[in-house]
Amino acid sequence: MNESKLGELLAQVSAGTLPPDQALERLRTLPFVEAGEVLADTHRVIRQGFPEAVYAEGKTLAQTTDALTALLAAHGCALATRVNPEIAAQLQQRFPTGGYDAVSRLYRIGQMSASFSTVPVAVVCAGTSDLPVAEEAAQTLEFAGAHVNRITDVGVAGLHRLLARLDDLRAAGIVIAIAGMEGALPSVLGGLVATPVIAVPTSVGYGASLKGIAALLGMLSSCASGLTVVNIDNGFGAAVAALRILRLRSNQE
Amino acid sequence: MNESKLGELLAQVSAGTLPPDQALERLRTLPFVEAGEVLADTHRVIRQGFPEAVYAEGKTLAQTTDALTALLAAHGCALATRVNPEIAAQLQQRFPTGGYDAVSRLYRIGQMSASFSTVPVAVVCAGTSDLPVAEEAAQTLEFAGAHVNRITDVGVAGLHRLLARLDDLRAAGIVIAIAGMEGALPSVLGGLVATPVIAVPTSVGYGASLKGIAALLGMLSSCASGLTVVNIDNGFGAAVAALRILRLRSNQE
Amino acid sequence: MNESKLGELLAQVSAGTLPPDQALERLRTLPFVEAGEVLADTHRVIRQGFPEAVYAEGKTLAQTTDALTALLAAHGCALATRVNPEIAAQLQQRFPTGGYDAVSRLYRIGQMSASFSTVPVAVVCAGTSDLPVAEEAAQTLEFAGAHVNRITDVGVAGLHRLLARLDDLRAAGIVIAIAGMEGALPSVLGGLVATPVIAVPTSVGYGASLKGIAALLGMLSSCASGLTVVNIDNGFGAAVAALRILRLRSNQE
Amino acid sequence: MNESKLGELLAQVSAGTLPPDQALERLRTLPFVEAGEVLADTHRVIRQGFPEAVYAEGKTLAQTTDALTALLAAHGCALATRVNPEIAAQLQQRFPTGGYDAVSRLYRIGQMSASFSTVPVAVVCAGTSDLPVAEEAAQTLEFAGAHVNRITDVGVAGLHRLLARLDDLRAAGIVIAIAGMEGALPSVLGGLVATPVIAVPTSVGYGASLKGIAALLGMLSSCASGLTVVNIDNGFGAAVAALRILRLRSNQE
Amino acid sequence: MNESKLGELLAQVSAGTLPPDQALERLRTLPFVEAGEVLADTHRVIRQGFPEAVYAEGKTLAQTTDALTALLAAHGCALATRVNPEIAAQLQQRFPTGGYDAVSRLYRIGQMSASFSTVPVAVVCAGTSDLPVAEEAAQTLEFAGAHVNRITDVGVAGLHRLLARLDDLRAAGIVIAIAGMEGALPSVLGGLVATPVIAVPTSVGYGASLKGIAALLGMLSSCASGLTVVNIDNGFGAAVAALRILRLRSNQE
Amino acid sequence: MNESKLGELLAQVSAGTLPPDQALERLRTLPFVEAGEVLADTHRVIRQGFPEAVYAEGKTLAQTTDALTALLAAHGCALATRVNPEIAAQLQQRFPTGGYDAVSRLYRIGQMSASFSTVPVAVVCAGTSDLPVAEEAAQTLEFAGAHVNRITDVGVAGLHRLLARLDDLRAAGIVIAIAGMEGALPSVLGGLVATPVIAVPTSVGYGASLKGIAALLGMLSSCASGLTVVNIDNGFGAAVAALRILRLRSNQE
Amino acid sequence: MNESKLGELLAQVSAGTLPPDQALERLRTLPFVEAGEVLADTHRVIRQGFPEAVYAEGKTLAQTTDALTALLAAHGCALATRVNPEIAAQLQQRFPTGGYDAVSRLYRIGQMSASFSTVPVAVVCAGTSDLPVAEEAAQTLEFAGAHVNRITDVGVAGLHRLLARLDDLRAAGIVIAIAGMEGALPSVLGGLVATPVIAVPTSVGYGASLKGIAALLGMLSSCASGLTVVNIDNGFGAAVAALRILRLRSNQE
Amino acid sequence: MNESKLGELLAQVSAGTLPPDQALERLRTLPFVEAGEVLADTHRVIRQGFPEAVYAEGKTLAQTTDALTALLAAHGCALATRVNPEIAAQLQQRFPTGGYDAVSRLYRIGQMSASFSTVPVAVVCAGTSDLPVAEEAAQTLEFAGAHVNRITDVGVAGLHRLLARLDDLRAAGIVIAIAGMEGALPSVLGGLVATPVIAVPTSVGYGASLKGIAALLGMLSSCASGLTVVNIDNGFGAAVAALRILRLRSNQE
Repeated sequence: MNESKLGELLAQVSAGTLPPDQALERLRTLPFVEAGEVLADTHRVIRQGFPEAVYAEGKTLAQTTDALTALLAAHGCALATRVNPEIAAQLQQRFPTGGYDAVSRLYRIGQMSASFSTVPVAVVCAGTSDLPVAEEAAQTLEFAGAHVNRITDVGVAGLHRLLARLDDLRAAGIVIAIAGMEGALPSVLGGLVATPVIAVPTSVGYGASLKGIAALLGMLSSCASGLTVVNIDNGFGAAVAALRILRLRSNQE
Repeated sequence: MNESKLGELLAQVSAGTLPPDQALERLRTLPFVEAGEVLADTHRVIRQGFPEAVYAEGKTLAQTTDALTALLAAHGCALATRVNPEIAAQLQQRFPTGGYDAVSRLYRIGQMSASFSTVPVAVVCAGTSDLPVAEEAAQTLEFAGAHVNRITDVGVAGLHRLLARLDDLRAAGIVIAIAGMEGALPSVLGGLVATPVIAVPTSVGYGASLKGIAALLGMLSSCASGLTVVNIDNGFGAAVAALRILRLRSNQE
Repeated sequence: MNESKLGELLAQVSAGTLPPDQALERLRTLPFVEAGEVLADTHRVIRQGFPEAVYAEGKTLAQTTDALTALLAAHGCALATRVNPEIAAQLQQRFPTGGYDAVSRLYRIGQMSASFSTVPVAVVCAGTSDLPVAEEAAQTLEFAGAHVNRITDVGVAGLHRLLARLDDLRAAGIVIAIAGMEGALPSVLGGLVATPVIAVPTSVGYGASLKGIAALLGMLSSCASGLTVVNIDNGFGAAVAALRILRLRSNQE
Repeated sequence: MNESKLGELLAQVSAGTLPPDQALERLRTLPFVEAGEVLADTHRVIRQGFPEAVYAEGKTLAQTTDALTALLAAHGCALATRVNPEIAAQLQQRFPTGGYDAVSRLYRIGQMSASFSTVPVAVVCAGTSDLPVAEEAAQTLEFAGAHVNRITDVGVAGLHRLLARLDDLRAAGIVIAIAGMEGALPSVLGGLVATPVIAVPTSVGYGASLKGIAALLGMLSSCASGLTVVNIDNGFGAAVAALRILRLRSNQE
Repeated sequence: MNESKLGELLAQVSAGTLPPDQALERLRTLPFVEAGEVLADTHRVIRQGFPEAVYAEGKTLAQTTDALTALLAAHGCALATRVNPEIAAQLQQRFPTGGYDAVSRLYRIGQMSASFSTVPVAVVCAGTSDLPVAEEAAQTLEFAGAHVNRITDVGVAGLHRLLARLDDLRAAGIVIAIAGMEGALPSVLGGLVATPVIAVPTSVGYGASLKGIAALLGMLSSCASGLTVVNIDNGFGAAVAALRILRLRSNQE
Repeated sequence: MNESKLGELLAQVSAGTLPPDQALERLRTLPFVEAGEVLADTHRVIRQGFPEAVYAEGKTLAQTTDALTALLAAHGCALATRVNPEIAAQLQQRFPTGGYDAVSRLYRIGQMSASFSTVPVAVVCAGTSDLPVAEEAAQTLEFAGAHVNRITDVGVAGLHRLLARLDDLRAAGIVIAIAGMEGALPSVLGGLVATPVIAVPTSVGYGASLKGIAALLGMLSSCASGLTVVNIDNGFGAAVAALRILRLRSNQE
Repeated sequence: MNESKLGELLAQVSAGTLPPDQALERLRTLPFVEAGEVLADTHRVIRQGFPEAVYAEGKTLAQTTDALTALLAAHGCALATRVNPEIAAQLQQRFPTGGYDAVSRLYRIGQMSASFSTVPVAVVCAGTSDLPVAEEAAQTLEFAGAHVNRITDVGVAGLHRLLARLDDLRAAGIVIAIAGMEGALPSVLGGLVATPVIAVPTSVGYGASLKGIAALLGMLSSCASGLTVVNIDNGFGAAVAALRILRLRSNQE
Repeated sequence: MNESKLGELLAQVSAGTLPPDQALERLRTLPFVEAGEVLADTHRVIRQGFPEAVYAEGKTLAQTTDALTALLAAHGCALATRVNPEIAAQLQQRFPTGGYDAVSRLYRIGQMSASFSTVPVAVVCAGTSDLPVAEEAAQTLEFAGAHVNRITDVGVAGLHRLLARLDDLRAAGIVIAIAGMEGALPSVLGGLVATPVIAVPTSVGYGASLKGIAALLGMLSSCASGLTVVNIDNGFGAAVAALRILRLRSNQE
């Protein structure tokens, strides 16, 4: 559209129906529109590689529904995070092809890609309490077509279980390490694997765990080099960070 | 320059030496350059109204000198903040027309404007300890050509001195209220004047004043409506905020 | 009333019915009453320019109703902030001419002024989650008779949308920049416009956003000069700060 | 009782029925009992001067009832703080002579003293939101027989109302200054009166007020000398601190 | 002076040389001057009872000297707190009748009163590390003419030493309890005496003591009722708080 | 099992049916399995000495039931902590031999040992509010077969009650000292006994007690040497720490 | 060595000189040695891909020299971070082939690889103050053989400079985004590129920037999805995180 | 002495030279003296088992010398902690039989006991940076006659080194686990051994490690049950905690 507008303008100049100085005047007002559109292109590219998601916490049903509808129209698939069961039940009526997972609290409609990448992403945590965050990460990855290997029964206070999964850990291309309380798991994993490790602190714990702050500070201060960290409970963000890495691989191969 | 490039292109189209579709192709790559230039225009406008300053704390003499030289070349005047006496002595040799003020720790070369605005800006604080911040604000305003009225002997624990200056306070167009410790001065002033009040917490105090955090939190929580707050000890920022307001007045008169 | 009391006293002195020393004795007790009255005058002036509002959060229906009734009697209009829907429904019965807005949670009865100022105030935010704060600011401004331009679809992670609204932003006399999470919007806007920018952190976010503290600290630490900041979620305060600025313009024109 | 035991022992020694070395052996085991009793005496003295109160928040009805019953038996009167209306309704049935005040959330049975002191204690705050804390302080003082003067319509952003009450403030023997948000009231009062000022921060406010921490830090950092501070919302503690002062006066007159 | 001005005015009215309405006009402008003067009276009263002191930390020699000179001129005596040895040596030359105490870091010139009060104020701490704060309190009290009883060898981890001083503690009219680290001393003392207890947290400690924050929070949260707290290391403030109490006693006897 | 696998392999080598180099190849893959098993042994040992418990807070009934069932199968007894009454009622139906204690919020099925140790462990606190934590510690110890002596009526503001229990305190082998608010109890106890003192801060308190942070910081900063501290409200952790100590005694006797 | 020990043992079994059950007994003690060795293998792999570095801050010259010597012996190259100029001068004498960079404070001896990866890593910051962190990242990458593109003149308050570098940013395979103060740069970049963005907060700023905490919290709370964050000023860690990603690409190509 | 005083008194009663009622009167004043003495006995017992030490940080040479002299006189041996080299050099002249260790910063004169306990105490840390704290713990234990096993080359990011020392760890009676940065070591150790684990956070790290707060919070929040924690860098406290445990064993064997 914009190109056609430009083309028209140039055709008029070429045809002599628009003097160059008047054309210049008109063009002076274009750049920002252009800037917007080129930047919009950038965003379009980013959106094609990443799942755009509706963060449903604190949103009304109407707001969530509107946002999902827009995503669905744009991409043919849609994802909502932090959906509580009540909202989910109503979304199910509105989007009957979608599905809700009560652990991850994700509501998914369709899938971005069936097989975006075959590099296994290990999603690692210690157990029950961290599962909602782990599943938010894992299912977001699966929604985007990544290959996930769940390792959900390891914790630093039980090294025997961790070592028993060492082969799986070393086979992973990326490790998402999820831990609450003291958040030591990523440090231990960072020393065991050479691949990217994305650490996710969770709000699991009480008292001095300060709702995840203790784990967050610990992960940032880790003695293992080259860990990176996302926000507390941010399984979705960890998944997108992994997708950014996977995308780099596939883009540049 | 950019316009001339565009003009040339259009002239070539008009002259038939450049087919419209090739011109279109070339224009597709322009927008970001454009965006950059138009934004640069915006920044140029902002710079003309505000003092650009070198924040000298933590910079080497060479870094400070380079930055001042560049500002001087661009604007014919320059300002450095948080200059310690040792650096100042050496700047004086390099920029003999400049001058240092030991209280505000400003090094000024020239002046942006002799009379940018005649609206009096009251710079208010309780006394000795807050003076460095107050003078940073006041002298930055004066560097930009604003009219400053210093009220530096008032504090909330001595209301008689504050009330004795009420006429001056009410005559001010803008009040910059500077306070450390509990930082209550802006709240009291906010209730006494109807003009904009810019609150500046200072790091004056000890123990529970937490190096200015107590004053900062207090000012943000003020019971007086419509106060705005800048960073701790940020006299320069308060001055620029005041200049933004003064500029609005002069721009739209 | 007080003046008449003074006048009476002086008349008695003049008439010789009250000896000067007895009059002096009586006058000695007056000053504070006077101080109170003159200060009250000051407050009256402030109140005429600003919306006085009832902060309804945590207040009972009775307390809110009493406060609104008093404001209404004094000013012919009244505003309550942070009103929940239950209270609002009951206020509607008591003040049938008023109206409730569920997004801003404001309950408004009448209007201070139809056209206090024609300078456009841009109320800018990234979208859905920040809307309650944005609308609290916008509708407070409108209640006071200011002219508001809402820009509610921009965020720093989507520059194309922000640049697309650059004309509107540059046309504004004052920018109120509202952002949660990392709170970067005001920094970007502060570099794009030369007018006053009032930054409002919101409590939108989770984990490390610490209920708005991350955004608040970021805004206070901004690399853009001359931003000022109000309390977390304080849309009302930002509006009053803008009104203080607008009042300065109109007062001194 | 203990004295009688000692007396008996000495009588036996005196009578020759208990040899001194056996008496010595027995006495060796006494001191701690003694220590306990003498300390208990100290506590008895303290209890006679202060209201002992049941902090009802988080206690069950049974726990609150038991504690009140014990106090009643010991002192003939009893006080419970932070009582919610549901518990209060049930206490009323159990202790029909008692009474509940919904603002202060105190449940009082009887009164320690009708007139412990005639020195007026000013309980000062800005208004509606701080009233629960102010009334907790005021009614605790009244329960102990102190004389209270309530000044509940003053705030630092409205100096005219504060100055209008200056006579009352200066007539007070002790000032309890209660404030939320920025907590500036005690600083202003501390500069206006020469009597003891006990500052009580309240949790009134939001965002940067950090549930009373801003006010607390501000009061501790006050520029007015000689203020003392109690915990956030601790109206009861402020009252007891005032009673300690009043007791000093009456004790040593 | 002010009275004479008023008296003159009334005399003119009485003499008929000034019509009542013109007198009224003049009086309208007086109140604030009046307010200032009456408030200044209040401050004068406060100053007569309390030591005004120069907080020397962060002040230059010139600033400290000027402030002391002004106090000396006004009151015939002067006090500076937080004076380091270098400044003290220079003050000694300027004020040869003054004296420096290296522990309290006070520089005293003269004395406010030889015997303001005979009520013993116990200044209590655990030992060496808290002595600077304890002596700042004790010597400030002595400068004001109060009677101090130092108890500096007690700590909660050595109850035998504390109990050995119980008689002294119970004989005190006011207890100033100074403690760093966990700051438990005031809680224990608050249970042992019925008099006012002013708690002073000190910055003694490391790690989790957070430069006195741990002690401060502990004292504010004390299970002993009616303690009041001042800022960290604020021995001077505790002394002034004690003087406010002593003044109440003497004023109203 | 693993040993038999190894034995088999060696038997094949011995029998000549497996060449040594092929056996070597197989053994190369074993170590980690081994490591896991040996570590699992370590964990088995630890589990035999300590109560493994299900932390029920935030778990669903199904998750809690599954975890308890697994523990029961493995050890013949099971313990769940932080069980709310609703969940408890349903556990009672599922595990009819178990029992719930509403104060400690523990659900216990069976007992690890009837008499693991005869060394008395004193569980000390000030009263009603700290009882849930104290009972969690005490009943966990009893579940493991330790001998508990409850001392639940002492607080630092009432030394007479504390000293009255000095004999019991000195008879204890280990002291678990539980306190909220300022958390001073462990400091006092640490000075009175020479045995291990495990300090447990509780979230009892309000305002500046910061949900147990004040007590935690105080205990960590204690002036009594050799105290150790566990997380806020962590009665279970304190009990396990005591069991580690008791186990050391019994192990090495 | 270990294999040879195993081989020997199996040969003895095969030869019949060692009965299988005795061999079994010996093997039971091996696993941990094995575990250690296999894990050591893992670490060797990690070390081959990453630079091991000596964190020199707080280390003595002797400690730094010893550590560098050991790394040099093991890898033929060595890196020390946070080296101050005094230590650097002495290292230069001890390791004459090494070199010191005063901006990054790195001391490098040799290079891990000349060309580990050709994927450009953009190291982006706003200017002078952030350069030490940016250069620590850039030069660590270069030491490891990665290709770095420095973009050091962009900041969010000057979008025109940022947009002018958009091509470079979009050409990068990985973006390391370094920012102090409000730390908004990564959010903006995260919206402009689809590649991995590693955010590094710096301690640049004052007051409310809390030595980098404001930037850290902002980056963790970013509205741009899929950013990851490392510790404050941790340029080295960001570089290693980038190398983990680059290694994934090269490993799996 | 006190007994003899009591004995004398009883002898006088027995001899009839002191009437029982006068004896009773005298005894009434005794208890606190008694209490003090019995408590002093308690403290004497504690002192005999623990090293009393002078915390030299912030003390003058004179204060440190006096304190050491007193300890030496009382116990025949003395210990000072946190001694800087300058003070140490001067102590060496004053106490020539003493010795200084530059790593632990301990100054020791003599030894409490040559062999207080043979139970090995493992002092575990990751290396160079934590050594000062580790040695403070180890050498304090050795001063008291305990048996120490240093394990100073293990860290959670290098499990192979940790597992290689598993035998030593399991042989220890008590483990003191020292770690800075994320402080994960105690969690891993707590899962590997069944003995008491005393965790010591250190201030090693930067940025988000918040001078040891990250490690402290992590250790308190550990997923390993029954860990206990001491203050940041408090090697001495950990040693005394271990001695309390060792004393329990020896006392009750």
